[in-house]
Amino acid sequence: MLRLIENLFTRRSFLATAIIISGLAAAPLSAFAQQDPLPSWNEGAAKKAIIELVGQTTTQGGSGFVVPADRIAVFDQDGTTWAEHPLYSQALFALDRVATLAPQHPEWKNAEPFKSVLAGDYAAISKFSEKEWLEIVAVTHAGMSTADFEQIVRDWLPKSKNPILKRPVTELVYQPMLEVMAYLRANGFSTYIVTGGGQEFVRPYSDGVYGIPAEQVIGSSIVTKYEFKDGKPVLMREPKLFFNDNFDGKAIGINLFIGKRPIIAFGNSDGDRQMLEWTTAGDGPRLGLLVLHDDAAREFAYGPANGLPDTEVGTFSQSLMEEAKARTWEVISMKNDWATIFPKPKP
Amino acid sequence: MLRLIENLFTRRSFLATAIIISGLAAAPLSAFAQQDPLPSWNEGAAKKAIIELVGQTTTQGGSGFVVPADRIAVFDQDGTTWAEHPLYSQALFALDRVATLAPQHPEWKNAEPFKSVLAGDYAAISKFSEKEWLEIVAVTHAGMSTADFEQIVRDWLPKSKNPILKRPVTELVYQPMLEVMAYLRANGFSTYIVTGGGQEFVRPYSDGVYGIPAEQVIGSSIVTKYEFKDGKPVLMREPKLFFNDNFDGKAIGINLFIGKRPIIAFGNSDGDRQMLEWTTAGDGPRLGLLVLHDDAAREFAYGPANGLPDTEVGTFSQSLMEEAKARTWEVISMKNDWATIFPKPKP
Repeated sequence: MLRLIENLFTRRSFLATAIIISGLAAAPLSAFAQQDPLPSWNEGAAKKAIIELVGQTTTQGGSGFVVPADRIAVFDQDGTTWAEHPLYSQALFALDRVATLAPQHPEWKNAEPFKSVLAGDYAAISKFSEKEWLEIVAVTHAGMSTADFEQIVRDWLPKSKNPILKRPVTELVYQPMLEVMAYLRANGFSTYIVTGGGQEFVRPYSDGVYGIPAEQVIGSSIVTKYEFKDGKPVLMREPKLFFNDNFDGKAIGINLFIGKRPIIAFGNSDGDRQMLEWTTAGDGPRLGLLVLHDDAAREFAYGPANGLPDTEVGTFSQSLMEEAKARTWEVISMKNDWATIFPKPKP
Repeated sequence: MLRLIENLFTRRSFLATAIIISGLAAAPLSAFAQQDPLPSWNEGAAKKAIIELVGQTTTQGGSGFVVPADRIAVFDQDGTTWAEHPLYSQALFALDRVATLAPQHPEWKNAEPFKSVLAGDYAAISKFSEKEWLEIVAVTHAGMSTADFEQIVRDWLPKSKNPILKRPVTELVYQPMLEVMAYLRANGFSTYIVTGGGQEFVRPYSDGVYGIPAEQVIGSSIVTKYEFKDGKPVLMREPKLFFNDNFDGKAIGINLFIGKRPIIAFGNSDGDRQMLEWTTAGDGPRLGLLVLHDDAAREFAYGPANGLPDTEVGTFSQSLMEEAKARTWEVISMKNDWATIFPKPKP
C-alpha cells in the first residue's frame, strides 16, 4: 500500500539521498558539546533566544530566575520534533494497520474508507473526511486493551517507513530539537511532548527517542473502559474521543496534566497557537518558537506562511505568522537555522 | 454556618483535646529517622510489608528490582492521607464558599440547596442529592478562571477548620503517611495523589503539605474553556464534569496521567478498589494497602468494615474487606498500626 503512496511523491524521492548525505556530513557533536550546547543550530535569533532564556531563568538572584520545579518546556511533536510529511506518522500507522487487519475483514474491499486505503488510492485518502478517519481510527486504535495497543505500536515502529524519506519514523526526529531537549534538561527543565497525536501512540517510543518518559507525554486520547478479562483488570480502548489535545486543547491539556504554565514552547502549526499564547502570556521570561518548514532540499517546504499551498498537514497559516511577529515569537527557519536536520541513520 | 455542623458532632468534641495531647506526646522523629524510616508506625504487618517492598524493588540484581523511572506510588487523599470526617475538606470549602457568596445572592435564602446550607441545616445537607451538590459545585467551583479559583482556595486554606478536630484541614494530614511518602521518595519513587476530589482544589497545597508537585496530582476535574480576557488568555471553569477520578476512574486516571502501572497504592474506601486492583495486578512486587478508620479515640471509627454504620463519607465496605483478604492487600489499623496520627499543631 505504501508503495503507491510513495509513487505519488516521487518528485521528492531525491530527498532520501540528500538526507543521508547531510546526516553523514554532520560533524561529531561531542567535540562541540561543552562549548556549544546546540551544535546543530546555526548562529541566529532563534538559537540566541533559547540560550538567553536559559541563562535568565537559571541565574540565581537574577530577575528572571525560575525555581527548577517550575521550569517547564513543552514541545509539539508532528512537524516540530519529527517529520510530519507526507502524512502524520500515526496516520501511516493506521493505514499500515488496515492492511494488516484486512485478511480478517474481506468486506473492507468494497467498503469505504477501507477500500481506498487497501487500493493505495492516496488521492482519495488525502480527501478523507473526519468521519472517515474516525472509522479508520476505530478499527486500528480501539477494540483492544491498552497493553495490546502498546505492543502493536512497539511492533510497528521498527517496520515503519516514511514513504518519501525512506526511514523508520523514529529516525526522522530533528537533531536540533534533541539538542534543545537535552540542553533544557541539563538546566533543570522538565520537557513535555504536547501533541495533537495520540498520547498512547507516542508513549511507547517517547523515552527512547526523546528521553521523555510516559508521564511527560500529553496528547489526544480516546475513552478507556475498566474491565476484567481472565481474572485480571484491563483498560479497553473504546472508539470514542476523550480529549482532543489540539488548538485550545493544548492550553487546556497543559493545565490539566501539568498544572503549571510552561516557560518555553515549541510548535510549528496553527494547532500550536494557543499553546504558545498560553505559555508566553505568563509573567517573567517566556519564549515561544515556531518551526517553519522552508527546506525543500533537506526536508520539505510547505504551508501558506511560506507562500506555498496549504497541504492540510501541519498548516502554518499567514495569520499565525502575523501573530508570531506581533507577540515576538521566534520563527525557526529549518533552512537557515539548522545546520543538521536528522540524526545519522543507524548502521 | 460551621458552628451548627459542629454542634451536630459534639459527641466527638473530646477528640480535639485527645489529638493535641497525642501530637505533643509524640517522640521527636529525628532521633529515630536514621534507624527507622517510619517512626510513627508501630511494628506490624503493614509496616513490614512497606519496608520489604522498598527493599525488593531497590535491590540491584534482585528479582524484584524496578528502575527508578518505574517506581510509582499512588495515594488516595481523603481518609488516606488526611481526615475526611465529618465531611470531605472540599465539601467544607464549598459550604464556606456559599456563605461567603450569599450576600451577592439574596435569592439563596429561599432556594434549595442554598437555603439549607445558609441555615446550617446539616441534617438536610447530609441528604443532598448529587444534583444538589452539583448546584453547589457550579457556584463555588465554576464561573471563574483557573487562576482565580486557585487564589480562592489558597485564601481559604488557613481559615479552614475541621468542625470536630478544630484545626485547619491542611494540619489534619496523617504523620505516618507523610513518613511513607518521604521514605518512598528517598528510595527513588515518584509519589502521586490520586483523588476523587478536585485536582485543582488539591494542587494549591499539595506541594506544601505532601511535597507533591502539581503535575503529580491526579483528581477529578471540570471542563475548562480557553478564552481571552483583557487581551490575555484565561481558562474558564465550566459547571460541567470532565473527569471523575473515582472507582474505575482511578485506574483510568493513572493510565491517562502517568501511563505506568504503580508499584504501591494506598487507599481507604470503595472508591480506591480499582486503583488497588490495577496496581497489584502488575508483574513483580506490588503492594496494596487500605487505611481502616478504627480509632474513635484519636480520630474516627466508621464504616461497615468496622461493623459500624455506613456514613457515606469514605465507605470501606464488607465486600472491599473481603477482596483485601483475598488479594492479600494490607489493612492498616489506625488504632494499632499508627503510633502518631497527626503532626504536632503549628505554634
